[in-house]
Amino acid sequence: MRSILIFLAVLGGLTPLTHGQAPELHLQRTGDSTFIRAIYDEALARGEAHENLRQLTKDIGHRLSGSQSAFDAMHWGQGVLERYGADSVWVMPVMVPSWTRGTVAQATAIITGEEHPLRVTALGGSVSTPNDHPLRARLVHVKSLEQLSQLPPEEVEGRLVLFNRPMDPVLINTGAAYGGAVDQRGRGAIAAAKASAVGALVRSMTHALDTLPHTGAMYYEEGIDSVPSAAISTVDASWLANQLKANPNLEVVLEMNCRAFPDVEQGNVIGEWRGSELPDEIITLGGHLDSWDIGEGAHDDGAGIVHTLEVLRILKALGYTPRRTIRFVLFINEENGNRGGKTYAARAQEDHTTTNLRYVAALESDAGGFVPRGFRIDAGDEATALIQSWNSLFDPYNVHQFRRGGAGVDIGPLKALEPRPAMMGLSPDGQRYFDFHHSSQDVFENVHKRELELGAATFAAAVYMLDQHLPTPGTFD
Amino acid sequence: MRSILIFLAVLGGLTPLTHGQAPELHLQRTGDSTFIRAIYDEALARGEAHENLRQLTKDIGHRLSGSQSAFDAMHWGQGVLERYGADSVWVMPVMVPSWTRGTVAQATAIITGEEHPLRVTALGGSVSTPNDHPLRARLVHVKSLEQLSQLPPEEVEGRLVLFNRPMDPVLINTGAAYGGAVDQRGRGAIAAAKASAVGALVRSMTHALDTLPHTGAMYYEEGIDSVPSAAISTVDASWLANQLKANPNLEVVLEMNCRAFPDVEQGNVIGEWRGSELPDEIITLGGHLDSWDIGEGAHDDGAGIVHTLEVLRILKALGYTPRRTIRFVLFINEENGNRGGKTYAARAQEDHTTTNLRYVAALESDAGGFVPRGFRIDAGDEATALIQSWNSLFDPYNVHQFRRGGAGVDIGPLKALEPRPAMMGLSPDGQRYFDFHHSSQDVFENVHKRELELGAATFAAAVYMLDQHLPTPGTFD
Repeated sequence: MRSILIFLAVLGGLTPLTHGQAPELHLQRTGDSTFIRAIYDEALARGEAHENLRQLTKDIGHRLSGSQSAFDAMHWGQGVLERYGADSVWVMPVMVPSWTRGTVAQATAIITGEEHPLRVTALGGSVSTPNDHPLRARLVHVKSLEQLSQLPPEEVEGRLVLFNRPMDPVLINTGAAYGGAVDQRGRGAIAAAKASAVGALVRSMTHALDTLPHTGAMYYEEGIDSVPSAAISTVDASWLANQLKANPNLEVVLEMNCRAFPDVEQGNVIGEWRGSELPDEIITLGGHLDSWDIGEGAHDDGAGIVHTLEVLRILKALGYTPRRTIRFVLFINEENGNRGGKTYAARAQEDHTTTNLRYVAALESDAGGFVPRGFRIDAGDEATALIQSWNSLFDPYNVHQFRRGGAGVDIGPLKALEPRPAMMGLSPDGQRYFDFHHSSQDVFENVHKRELELGAATFAAAVYMLDQHLPTPGTFD
Repeated sequence: MRSILIFLAVLGGLTPLTHGQAPELHLQRTGDSTFIRAIYDEALARGEAHENLRQLTKDIGHRLSGSQSAFDAMHWGQGVLERYGADSVWVMPVMVPSWTRGTVAQATAIITGEEHPLRVTALGGSVSTPNDHPLRARLVHVKSLEQLSQLPPEEVEGRLVLFNRPMDPVLINTGAAYGGAVDQRGRGAIAAAKASAVGALVRSMTHALDTLPHTGAMYYEEGIDSVPSAAISTVDASWLANQLKANPNLEVVLEMNCRAFPDVEQGNVIGEWRGSELPDEIITLGGHLDSWDIGEGAHDDGAGIVHTLEVLRILKALGYTPRRTIRFVLFINEENGNRGGKTYAARAQEDHTTTNLRYVAALESDAGGFVPRGFRIDAGDEATALIQSWNSLFDPYNVHQFRRGGAGVDIGPLKALEPRPAMMGLSPDGQRYFDFHHSSQDVFENVHKRELELGAATFAAAVYMLDQHLPTPGTFD
């Protein structure tokens, strides 16, 4: 490590000492800023993230947990980790659900005898329509679960519920707008069944007025009937709501033949690069290898997977020697169960209890391949302050957000560890994310090469900073 | 103004006083942050920027200075300024060049008898090939003007020069990468003619490896022959350079029938909103109405035009009463002459000399319709410090860059005024800008609605802050 830093310092020239800066801090910052500059140069001039994403999205394609393509993606990921020089590569077994959308997902509005096709797709985990037959029912239009629960029974019973609350356009954080609307998708079928409705149509989770149904996870509850639930495009949802005003008796015919199969053993693909000074302290980084089964899972989360792989490639290319052990994890089953993340955390808990291994930090990239804006931090006050003190090192790369909360779903279960790992989520720009999210348009062509590369470099710089600057031992609480 | 601020403060709730903050500063900041939040809400919930851009790009289309469509755009802009309630709207006459690309712009590589079509387009202002006939010549490949000047005459004379230095991929600021390559486009024909070459092919100014020629301004010099100069796509430039290694005698046939016509009177379209307290102090904001004649000038600079119009709409919608006079300027001829900007500054100089009018601040949006990242500031130290002190007010909107230099081309000539106006350029994310810049892909579909709206809101917030917080009189030097 020292040799490469000296080499780079000579290459990059030494930054003049700023007035009032302590000499030791100055020297450290010069070394860090020079190494971070080298990371970005490597990502932008010789990056492989874009080509890796092409392979994952085009050669393999979408890869829902339990599917053959998810196995193919695991195999591909192992190969890249080995080729990039991980010391060891293995699969941590995870039992995952196996659900298929089936061959039919269609809906039609019938208005005074005329048929109007609607753009829908099954929500992930939905049951089929009864006996795979078309289900014909009147509609009830609501803006919230709450509103549905307050309607008189005769306005709901036997109908299909159209949940039609849009994402709030004035929230700058599109993730917050998503969070404010997604209860309709997650719990719409439960609420519909409780109110004796026969199914749910849920306005797609996107700001865009588009004709794409956006799928995503939905849930059932023990003891409450499982009724079918489908995503409907925002254009069709708005159109239906308008039609209902003039034609309160309009009916919708919904037909889906989704199926749930027994769980399948797949797993988290893990590559490990052993630390030179503190090999028992583990820094985990990753994204999720599974995706929904429409589109190609390019932003969600092909980007996070190739970011993760690129961190290994970049640090190796720069001759870096990690102080701590770095684990590159391609998680399985984030989309419909998070069993990969839960299994990884359970193993970490076991390691904490029975071995000397300490999971001191974890990073995730699962918010798309867009231009990086900063990090989401889940950590105690002391670790958060340390990470936020790096702000000026990232300023030349236009990375400015160091905000608390929401580091990631896959690493989320690691929060329960004691002591708690310092956790960081890469935070790319979110304005376009929901244009593509869980839709047929989440494809390779909609990921920008430079933005993807900048994300990889930003992710790598965070890993480097944690490895270098976590205290010894690398825990705060 | 006070009434709307109080109204908004009540709506928004008062922010608790931060420890150590002076009460007067706190109250001021609360009012500002509440008003800025209202600006963003208006832009995101009821914005018209996207629809205005559709009209400008789809109903009118590209609009090179001197063309009928530039007249149409002026007429359209006047109409919107009037509809949005400017106190007065007028055209400041500007004589602009009138150049046409012509009907033919083609090139073919001839390699051992086989013809390979190349994707080219005339650079703006180029002469035609001699007598509009095809020009056939061998190639000389260089990476810089300097390299060309050092070649032996026999390697250049009678040839076409291929200028093939790419934009530097490791620069985070894509504008800097553009600046580092664009001398080839601007001065390539001059350098070629000086070295007795017969013309120039210039690698397109984009990071992307694509098949689009990207046009742009080029120049001739008095006393040096005018030779034709064309942009060639990056894919074709790289391919030609490779082919040359194996086939040093390959020839290229270039044919273009561009024409320059006499200058035409068009003008800057100006809408004025008179100030209530300091009507002699003028805040100018604008973008440029003209565009290159391929694509639709959507990012360059349709976005800046609709940002400018949207500032007027938003501030009117919020019931704002400006303290100073605000001028909304749709500049003409930025692309090939900047005569609109020069004429405006000359008039401002005259006003400074002969009237009480003072041009205290100027803002420009001419860097695309992408998600806003901050501002470029051209101002003295005191004004720069004032503007940079607003950083925290913009943080909730992910607007973090407050960097010096490069506020804009149209407002650039105002720098010569004494005292100097405080100048700010809107700085959107630049990673995708050169994918589209000056190419057939700079179209409405490639501008993102929310990103455009966020840019408009950010621009409006800057205008509001300058109007409120410039000192009285509003000059620093």
